[in-house]
Amino acid sequence: MSALINAIPTLQIRYNEQGLVPAIAQDYLDGTVLMMAWMNVESLQKTLQTGEAWYWSRSRQELWHKGATSGHLQKVHSIRYDCDSDALLMTIEQIGDIACHTGERSCFHQIEGTKIAPPADTLSQVYRVVADRLVHPKPESYTCKLFEGGDNKILKKIGEESAEVVMACKDDDKEAIASEVADLLYHTLVALAYHQVDIRDVYRKLQHRRG
Amino acid sequence: MSALINAIPTLQIRYNEQGLVPAIAQDYLDGTVLMMAWMNVESLQKTLQTGEAWYWSRSRQELWHKGATSGHLQKVHSIRYDCDSDALLMTIEQIGDIACHTGERSCFHQIEGTKIAPPADTLSQVYRVVADRLVHPKPESYTCKLFEGGDNKILKKIGEESAEVVMACKDDDKEAIASEVADLLYHTLVALAYHQVDIRDVYRKLQHRRG
Repeated sequence: MSALINAIPTLQIRYNEQGLVPAIAQDYLDGTVLMMAWMNVESLQKTLQTGEAWYWSRSRQELWHKGATSGHLQKVHSIRYDCDSDALLMTIEQIGDIACHTGERSCFHQIEGTKIAPPADTLSQVYRVVADRLVHPKPESYTCKLFEGGDNKILKKIGEESAEVVMACKDDDKEAIASEVADLLYHTLVALAYHQVDIRDVYRKLQHRRG
Repeated sequence: MSALINAIPTLQIRYNEQGLVPAIAQDYLDGTVLMMAWMNVESLQKTLQTGEAWYWSRSRQELWHKGATSGHLQKVHSIRYDCDSDALLMTIEQIGDIACHTGERSCFHQIEGTKIAPPADTLSQVYRVVADRLVHPKPESYTCKLFEGGDNKILKKIGEESAEVVMACKDDDKEAIASEVADLLYHTLVALAYHQVDIRDVYRKLQHRRG
């Protein structure tokens, strides 16, 4: 029996005329919205009981245990309902990191018909840009200059920026603190990308700090 | 005319029998899902033209310019559609930081009938826990011990953890890099909370790094 069993009062949810409620699945680490699908009361109950996402397939008109065929199961970390009780929001751990039947990480990848990675938090977005510079260098890019200098150039900046955070805090200058922390985070992302350590691996470590 | 004007092929979107498509609004900084509402072709076109969110109110059966009455407008930063073309995802800047008519930041705040802040990315989640420890101290908490020691104790840890990041990188030990960066981030969050600087202020600074 999953820990979620009482998270949602399944009978008080306002299902539509087809007996369905929209359910949004969001990555538990970086907040990326991975998909939106539909649940009926039975699939919602199965989700709460098993701790894995079950939807209702409108095209096949049947219960749909997400990932049962592909192996791309969704482990549900939390589930909430909204102020009108007519929409659900889950944070999930997407097994295989692929939620979309097209093979993309998220179903929400289309802008003007081209594929563009879906939004996550700011730190993950900046990490993605920085990591991309390593694979696709741009001559005028500051990030690329850091990569060219290697560890000694990158790590010197981490020392420098952490000292600047210390000084801004000692001055209790809130504007400077925000700027210097942003600089420290950026250079830390450069170090991560240079060593090919994903920001998600750092988030996994940080999750254990929450308890 | 907004920069979004061509982001969505409005006539190719698959609206339901009522001519509506679900639209998810997500915070552009930390990825929090703030609300889900419905758009028809006209409200979608108005959203793309104005760069502000327009929905279709199912209860009032009319176009709904979100925030026109309350002032809580939603500035749309990006808009995507999903693989089936039957759901939309927007990243927005929520004016006033309140999306829900109940006064909560997000409509998705209910678990078992109690109000619990909605999920964001890991760093923001940990920041929230740390900042809460400042207001509601717990005797056995490591975070509270840091707060008690003030700047000199907190900032000494930032120096120490940044040196450990440097050493882990020099060793090219990926597991250690992830751990040490997590430690550095955690102690940086403690410094931010101690000086009452929100992680969102840091994210705003970092957003400018993306260009």
